[in-house]
Amino acid sequence: MESPWDELTLAFSRTSMFPFFDIAHYLVSLMAMKRQPGAVTMAWKNPFSSWCTAMLHCFGGGILSCILLAEPPLRFLANNTNILLASSIWYIIFFCPCDLVCQAYSFLPVQLLAAGMKEVTRTWKIVGGVTHANSYYKNGWIVMIAIGWARGAGGSIITNFEQLMKGTWKPEADEWLKMSYPSKVTLLGSLMFTFQHTKHLAISKHNLMFFYTVFLVATKITMMLTEASPVPFGPFEDILGRMLFGYHQQFSPCTKKSETKSNGTGSSTSKPTADASDKLKKKHSKKTE
Amino acid sequence: MESPWDELTLAFSRTSMFPFFDIAHYLVSLMAMKRQPGAVTMAWKNPFSSWCTAMLHCFGGGILSCILLAEPPLRFLANNTNILLASSIWYIIFFCPCDLVCQAYSFLPVQLLAAGMKEVTRTWKIVGGVTHANSYYKNGWIVMIAIGWARGAGGSIITNFEQLMKGTWKPEADEWLKMSYPSKVTLLGSLMFTFQHTKHLAISKHNLMFFYTVFLVATKITMMLTEASPVPFGPFEDILGRMLFGYHQQFSPCTKKSETKSNGTGSSTSKPTADASDKLKKKHSKKTE
Amino acid sequence: MESPWDELTLAFSRTSMFPFFDIAHYLVSLMAMKRQPGAVTMAWKNPFSSWCTAMLHCFGGGILSCILLAEPPLRFLANNTNILLASSIWYIIFFCPCDLVCQAYSFLPVQLLAAGMKEVTRTWKIVGGVTHANSYYKNGWIVMIAIGWARGAGGSIITNFEQLMKGTWKPEADEWLKMSYPSKVTLLGSLMFTFQHTKHLAISKHNLMFFYTVFLVATKITMMLTEASPVPFGPFEDILGRMLFGYHQQFSPCTKKSETKSNGTGSSTSKPTADASDKLKKKHSKKTE
Repeated sequence: MESPWDELTLAFSRTSMFPFFDIAHYLVSLMAMKRQPGAVTMAWKNPFSSWCTAMLHCFGGGILSCILLAEPPLRFLANNTNILLASSIWYIIFFCPCDLVCQAYSFLPVQLLAAGMKEVTRTWKIVGGVTHANSYYKNGWIVMIAIGWARGAGGSIITNFEQLMKGTWKPEADEWLKMSYPSKVTLLGSLMFTFQHTKHLAISKHNLMFFYTVFLVATKITMMLTEASPVPFGPFEDILGRMLFGYHQQFSPCTKKSETKSNGTGSSTSKPTADASDKLKKKHSKKTE
Repeated sequence: MESPWDELTLAFSRTSMFPFFDIAHYLVSLMAMKRQPGAVTMAWKNPFSSWCTAMLHCFGGGILSCILLAEPPLRFLANNTNILLASSIWYIIFFCPCDLVCQAYSFLPVQLLAAGMKEVTRTWKIVGGVTHANSYYKNGWIVMIAIGWARGAGGSIITNFEQLMKGTWKPEADEWLKMSYPSKVTLLGSLMFTFQHTKHLAISKHNLMFFYTVFLVATKITMMLTEASPVPFGPFEDILGRMLFGYHQQFSPCTKKSETKSNGTGSSTSKPTADASDKLKKKHSKKTE
Repeated sequence: MESPWDELTLAFSRTSMFPFFDIAHYLVSLMAMKRQPGAVTMAWKNPFSSWCTAMLHCFGGGILSCILLAEPPLRFLANNTNILLASSIWYIIFFCPCDLVCQAYSFLPVQLLAAGMKEVTRTWKIVGGVTHANSYYKNGWIVMIAIGWARGAGGSIITNFEQLMKGTWKPEADEWLKMSYPSKVTLLGSLMFTFQHTKHLAISKHNLMFFYTVFLVATKITMMLTEASPVPFGPFEDILGRMLFGYHQQFSPCTKKSETKSNGTGSSTSKPTADASDKLKKKHSKKTE
C-alpha cells in the first residue's frame, strides 16, 4: 500500500499532456514568435512560410532530438491531431479579427497560467527524451542527458538555425551556445532524470517529476512577477567556474605569459564585468523572447 | 477488359524514366546551373566542387526527401548508372570543346523538348515520394504531401542551402519559402496524389498521372513560348488568401490598433502592390533560374 | 605459414588505436583549435560552448559519416571512455596553469611524434569507413569512397559549418570544397582502400595499410620539418587536369566565343596564376590550421 503522498505524485506523473498543456505550450511559443519583429507582416504576405516557422516553434525540440538520433525529422507531422491543434492556434493568433487572443493574452493571470502549464510540459519532454535515448544506448548516459536537454530546450536552437537560413539573424561568436535560463534549468533537469534513470539518484521518478515541476513553475512565475534576474544559478555557476576554470586568477605571471602568447586571454581578466553585462543582455533577451 | 483509353494511360504510367527522361532532367538542371554567374570559372578552377554542385542539382530532391525521412542522404550515390550518366552530362556541358552542347541547347525546340521531358519526371518523383512516405506512416497524409513535394521540388532548397554554405547567396527574410511556380504546382500535385492514394479522390492513379503530366507539360511549354506570368494560380491564390487571411480589410479600426501594437502590420496595408512586385521578382528569378 | 614481413604488417594492422594514438589525435586537433583566434577567450567565458567545439574537432569525421549514412550523430557520445579522454585533454590544454602543455607541445619532437601518430589514426578511420559503408551498399563503391573520405578528413567540414553557425567564418565561393592536402591524401587513400576492398587492387589489406601509413607519416613529417609545399600531388593534378579539363587551351577561338557567351570563363585564361596563388593561400591556411 502506498502513502497518499505517493498516490498524489503518481497521479500527477500520469497526467496526460494532450489537450490542455499542449495548447498552453503552443500558445506561449506562438505568442513569443508573434512578438518577433516582422512576424506579422510575414504571416500576411507569406502564410505558408509563417506556418512552417510556427511548426518549428511548436515542435522544435522534438525535431532536434529526432535529428540527433537519426529519426525522421518529419515524424511530428504524422501526429495529425497535434498539427491541427497547433495550426488552429497559429491561425487564431495571427489572423483573428481585432486580434482578440492577443488582447486576452495580455492579461497577466492568463500569461501566468499559460507559462506555468508550458513549464509542466518541459518536465514531460525531458523525461520522454531521457527514456527514449536510453532505449538506444543502454549506458550512454551522456546521450541521455543530451537528448533530454534537446527535447526540453532544443526548440530555440532550431528556430535560431531557421532564422539564420532566413537571414534575419546574424550570429555572433560570443552568443553561440550562451545558455539562457531555460536551457540551464533544462540541462539540470536532464542531468537529474538521467541519474535517476541510472539509479544513481535514490528518488522515485514520480517524486522527482513532481518536485522538479514545482521548482520550474515556481521559478518561472516568480521571474514573471518580479522582473528579477534568475537567481538560483548565479552563485553556483560562479563557484563552479572558479573551482574548475578559475586558476588564472592565482597565477598572474603565467597568464601574462600566455596572454602574450595567445591573443584573447587578455580579455579574460575583464571576466566579471563581461559576465555582468552578459547577464543583463540575457535578461533583456529573455524579456524579448 | 479495359477501354483503350485506360490501356493508353496505363501504358503511359508504366513508362520507365531511366534512360531518356533522366537525361533530359540532368540536362535542364545542369544548364540552369551553368547559367549561374561564376559556375564556369569554378568548373575550371575546382572541378571537384563543381561536380558536387552538379550532383546536388541533379539529385537534390531525393537527397532532401532522404534527409526528411532519416534515410542515408548518400543513397543516390549507390545508383552507379545514374551517377555515371549525370557525371558525363556534367562533363560534356562544362568541358566540351566549343561548347557544342550549349549551342545545340540554345535552339528553342531542343529546350522545349528537354523541359517537357523534365516535367514528366516531376510527376514520377511526386508519385514515388507519396508512395514511399505512405510506407512509413500509414495515415500520415501531411508527411506524404511533404515528401512528395520535397522529392518533386526540393532540389531548389538543397541548392539554396549549398549556395548559402558557399557564401554566394545571402538570404532575405521575405524571400524565404517564397514559393516559385514549380513549387506551387508540385505542391498541388502532391496534394492530389496524396488524396488519390488515401482514396479521397475518386480517380485511378494512372489517369491522374496522365492528366497531371499533360497539365505540367502544357503550362511549362506555354510559359516558355509566351513569356507570360504563370496564369493559373494567381486568382485562386487571391481568393483563397482573401477567404482565409483577408479579415484585415474589413476591420480597419482593429488593424489600426494592432498596427500600433505590433510593428510590421503597417506594411500589410500595402499588400497588393508588394505582391505585384513580388510577382515581378518571381518572374525574373524564374527566368534567371 | 606466413613470411615475417606479413607477420609484421599483420601485427601492425591489428594495432589498437585506443589509448595512445587517440590521445595524439585529440592533442593535435585541440592544439589546432586553441590556435584559432578567440578560442581561449571563449573557453574562459563559455566553457560549455568551447567543450562542444572541442568535441566537434575531435570526432567531426565520425559525426559527418554518421550524418551521411543516417546514423545517430550522437553515437560518439555513447563511447564514454573516449569522451572522457578527449574532455580531460581539452581541460588540460585550455585550463592548465601556466599552460605547461602548450609549452611542452611547443617542442618540435613532441609535435612530430603527435602529428605522426595522428596520421596513423587517419588510416584506421579510412579503413573503418570503407568497411562500414560496404556493409550498407554492397557494390556502392562511390559511397564507400565518400564515407572513407568523410571519416578520414570530414572533421574540417564539420568545424567549418560550426564556425559558420557561430558567425566567426564567412565562406567565400572559391574557398568552398577547395581541397587541402590532408583532404587530397585522404581521398587517395579512400580510393585505394575501396578498390582493395572490391578486389580491384591486388594487394592484401594489411600491406596496403602499412604502406599508406608510412607514406602519410613520412610526407607529414617532411612537410613539418621543411616548410615545403606538399610536393607529391602538384604535377599529377596538373597532368590530370590538363588531360580531363584542358581542352580550352587548344580551341582558343571557341573559348573566345564562349567567353563572350558565358561570363566567368574569361578568368579561366588566368588559371595558372590563380592556382599558384591558391597554392600559397592553401599553404598558409595549413600553417594556421
